Amino acid sequence: MSTPWNHRYAQRTQRMTSSVIRELLKLTALPDIISFAGGLPGPDLFPVDEMREATEIVLETRGRVALQYSTTEGFPPLREMIVRHMARYGIVVDIDNVLITSGSQQALDLIGKILINTGDKILTENPTYLGALQAFTMYGADFVTVPTDDDGLMTGKLEEALRCGPKFMYVLPNFQNPSGVTLSLERRKQLIRTADHYGIPIIEDDPYGQLRYEGDHIKPLVVIDAECLECDHNGKYTGNVIYLSTFSKTLAPGLRLGWIVAPKEVINRLVQAKQGTDLQSSTFDQMVAFEVGNGGFIDRHVHRIRDVYGHRRNVMLQALDKAFPDSSLGVRWTRPLGGLFLWMTLPEWMDAAELLKEAIKEKVAFVPGFAFYPGADVHNTMRLNFSYGRDDQIEEGIARLGRVIVHHIERRRVPVTA
Amino acid sequence: MSTPWNHRYAQRTQRMTSSVIRELLKLTALPDIISFAGGLPGPDLFPVDEMREATEIVLETRGRVALQYSTTEGFPPLREMIVRHMARYGIVVDIDNVLITSGSQQALDLIGKILINTGDKILTENPTYLGALQAFTMYGADFVTVPTDDDGLMTGKLEEALRCGPKFMYVLPNFQNPSGVTLSLERRKQLIRTADHYGIPIIEDDPYGQLRYEGDHIKPLVVIDAECLECDHNGKYTGNVIYLSTFSKTLAPGLRLGWIVAPKEVINRLVQAKQGTDLQSSTFDQMVAFEVGNGGFIDRHVHRIRDVYGHRRNVMLQALDKAFPDSSLGVRWTRPLGGLFLWMTLPEWMDAAELLKEAIKEKVAFVPGFAFYPGADVHNTMRLNFSYGRDDQIEEGIARLGRVIVHHIERRRVPVTA
Repeated sequence: MSTPWNHRYAQRTQRMTSSVIRELLKLTALPDIISFAGGLPGPDLFPVDEMREATEIVLETRGRVALQYSTTEGFPPLREMIVRHMARYGIVVDIDNVLITSGSQQALDLIGKILINTGDKILTENPTYLGALQAFTMYGADFVTVPTDDDGLMTGKLEEALRCGPKFMYVLPNFQNPSGVTLSLERRKQLIRTADHYGIPIIEDDPYGQLRYEGDHIKPLVVIDAECLECDHNGKYTGNVIYLSTFSKTLAPGLRLGWIVAPKEVINRLVQAKQGTDLQSSTFDQMVAFEVGNGGFIDRHVHRIRDVYGHRRNVMLQALDKAFPDSSLGVRWTRPLGGLFLWMTLPEWMDAAELLKEAIKEKVAFVPGFAFYPGADVHNTMRLNFSYGRDDQIEEGIARLGRVIVHHIERRRVPVTA
Repeated sequence: MSTPWNHRYAQRTQRMTSSVIRELLKLTALPDIISFAGGLPGPDLFPVDEMREATEIVLETRGRVALQYSTTEGFPPLREMIVRHMARYGIVVDIDNVLITSGSQQALDLIGKILINTGDKILTENPTYLGALQAFTMYGADFVTVPTDDDGLMTGKLEEALRCGPKFMYVLPNFQNPSGVTLSLERRKQLIRTADHYGIPIIEDDPYGQLRYEGDHIKPLVVIDAECLECDHNGKYTGNVIYLSTFSKTLAPGLRLGWIVAPKEVINRLVQAKQGTDLQSSTFDQMVAFEVGNGGFIDRHVHRIRDVYGHRRNVMLQALDKAFPDSSLGVRWTRPLGGLFLWMTLPEWMDAAELLKEAIKEKVAFVPGFAFYPGADVHNTMRLNFSYGRDDQIEEGIARLGRVIVHHIERRRVPVTA
C-alpha cells in the first residue's frame, strides 16, 4: 500500500536490518524443527508456582498500587533488593545508582540514547551481542572491534583499537553471547588498567554471570575497577564501569525486567530518557518480581538452573563429540563455562547461512554467525543454544546438524578426489 | 562524582529537561497534599478481582508461555482483540496493522525513532501532550503549532502552519491532554481534507476516546479519512492516519500496554525499531490483559469509569463555580466532555509556576501549563486532573486553590486601589 509515510522514514532506518535472529525465531515455531537458534531459557525451569503465589499476594495486599503508574526509576523495594544482590557480588552502591529497565535490551537503548552521537565509535568484542549492535546503530554508532579467543577479548590488541578514541567499550565478560567465552581474570585486570590509563569508560553487560557450571566465579569488571591498586580507586564504586544485568535468565524473560548500575548523574540522565521512552516498566511485573525474589528464592532457584543448564551443556558437548568424530573435518566449537550458548566454527570456505537452508530441510536450526561481527566479514560460524531443549532433543538435533555438515563437507571433497 | 561519562553525553541530551510533571508527581506523595497534578486514573476503579482471576487462569493454563520471550509484534490474541475493538469504532484493519507497545508513550518514542530526522518539523496543537514533546524532541524534532479553542485545533489556521512542510501532524482530538477540549466533527473533516490536499499524514493519539461523559461520540480522524468523499478513499483504511491508543485508562496503567494501528509497511519498521528498544512488551501482562478483556469485560468496565469520572468532573466544575463566584477576577476554565483534565487560564499577568509555590504551602498542587506549549511563552495556565480524587478531596482541593488564587489576585489589587 502506497502511503504518505513511505518517503518519510528517518535516515537512521536505513541502518535497520531485519534481525536474522528474529526471522529464525519464527522457524522455531514450525513443528518438528529442533531449534538451537533462540536464546530462550528452558521453560520447564520457570517458577510458575512461585509466580502464582507472588501475584496472588501482590494483588490481594497491594493490588491498587500494582495496577497504577509508578516512578520512572523503578519500584523502590526491587531496587533495594538489587542493591543487596550487587553487594554480594562485591559491588557496593546505593538505590540511587540503580534504574529498573524493561529488560537489558532497554538498558542498551537508553545508553545509546544518552551517549551516542552519529559517527561516535564504540569499542566491542568481535563477535558481540547482536542486540547491542541494533540498539547502538540506531543512534548512529560506528564500531571498532577487538578480536576474541578462548580467554575472551584479546587485551593485547586493545591499545591499538583505542587509538580511534571510542566513546566507551561494550564488553560481555561472562559466557559471552554469542561466543560463550569468558574473559580471564588476568585480562580483566589488564582491561581495567588500560581503560583507566586512556580514560575510556566501560559498559559491562552481564546477563549470565550467575549461570556458571564449571570453575570459579571471576569478579566483574566493576569490582576489579574498584579494587585496582594501580588506579588508586580505594575499593569504592568509581562510576567508570556501568553494569547491566537482568531477571530474564534467573527468573523469567516474559516479565521484561533488567537493571542498570551507574553513577547517579548518569542514572538521572537515563531516567529522563526513559520517561520519554516508556515512562516506566510495568509496576505489576516489578512488584511480582520483588515478591518472588524477596525471600531469597532467586538465589536458590539459580542453583537448580545451573544444574539443569550445566547438564544440557554436557549433553550438547557429548553429542558434538559423537557427531564429529573426525577432527580432520575442521569443525571446532567452544566449551563454555556457563551461559546459554556455544559457538561453532566451520571450515573457512563454508557459509553458515547457506548451510542453514540445508539444515532446515533436515529439521534443525541455528543462528549463522555473520550478523554478530561488526568488524569483519565472517561467514563460517554459528551460534548454538543449549538451554532450551530436552536432552533427547539436543542429542537428536546435534546428530542431524552433524549429518548436514559432514554431508556438506564430503560433497566438496568428492570432486577434489575424483 | 566526577566520572568519565560527564563529558560524553550525546548532543540530544542537551534538549532533555527534567519533566515538571515528574517533579510534581513526587509532591503528590507528601502527606496532606491534595494533588490535581498527576494524570492518574482513580485506583478505586481498578478491576483488581478480575485481574486476580485472569492471572490465575494465565499462570495455571499457560504459565510457561506467559513467562517466556514472545514476538515483538505482541501476543496475537490481544492484537486480534484490538482489531475487533477497532472495528466497533469503525476502523477496519487486520492483525498485521497492529503493534502492541509498552504504553502509548512507547508508541510516541518508536514513531520518533523511525520518522524524525534532526530539524524535522512536527505540527502540533498548542498546547499539546508533554510526553509527545519529550519523545519527539529526543530525535531532534522542531515544532510548528496551531492554536486551539473550545472546538480544538483551529483548522482555519492550519494551511498557514503547513507551509513549512511538517513531516506529520500530531493531534489529540478527544478531551485533549492538557486542555480537555475536543475537536468538532466539522473541524475533523476540514483537517482531513487539508491533510489530504497537502499530502501531510497524521498521528492521531486517542488515549481517552472511550471516556466520554457528555454528548455524542465523534468519529476518529482515521475513520473520517476513510470515509472522506472528496478524497475518494472508498471507506477503506488508507494508512494516512496512524492511530494510537492504550489500556492505561480503561484497564490499568501499571501494565504499560498500548497499541499502534498503522500501514503494514510502517508496522514492519516499528517492529524493527522495537526489537532494538525492548525486544517486546511483557508477555505476562499482555496475556493477562487479553484474559481480562476477552469476555467483553473492558467494555462493561468503561461504563462504570464513565459514571465515576463524569461525576468527579461535575464535582470539580461545581467546586470551581463556588470557588470563583466573582467572574471579574478573570479566571476561566474549560468544561471537558470527557477525559481526565480541565484547563484553567489565570489573568495574563499571573505566573502559574510561581503560584504553585503558594499552593503547595496551602497543601494543593497542579501542573503549571508552560511546559505544554512548544510554540509560545505562556505562563498563566494550569492543568487540573479530576479522575484521581474522592469527591471530598476535589471539593476541598479546589476550595484551597480558589483561596490561593483569589488571595494572589487581591494582593495585587490592593496597591492599585491604595
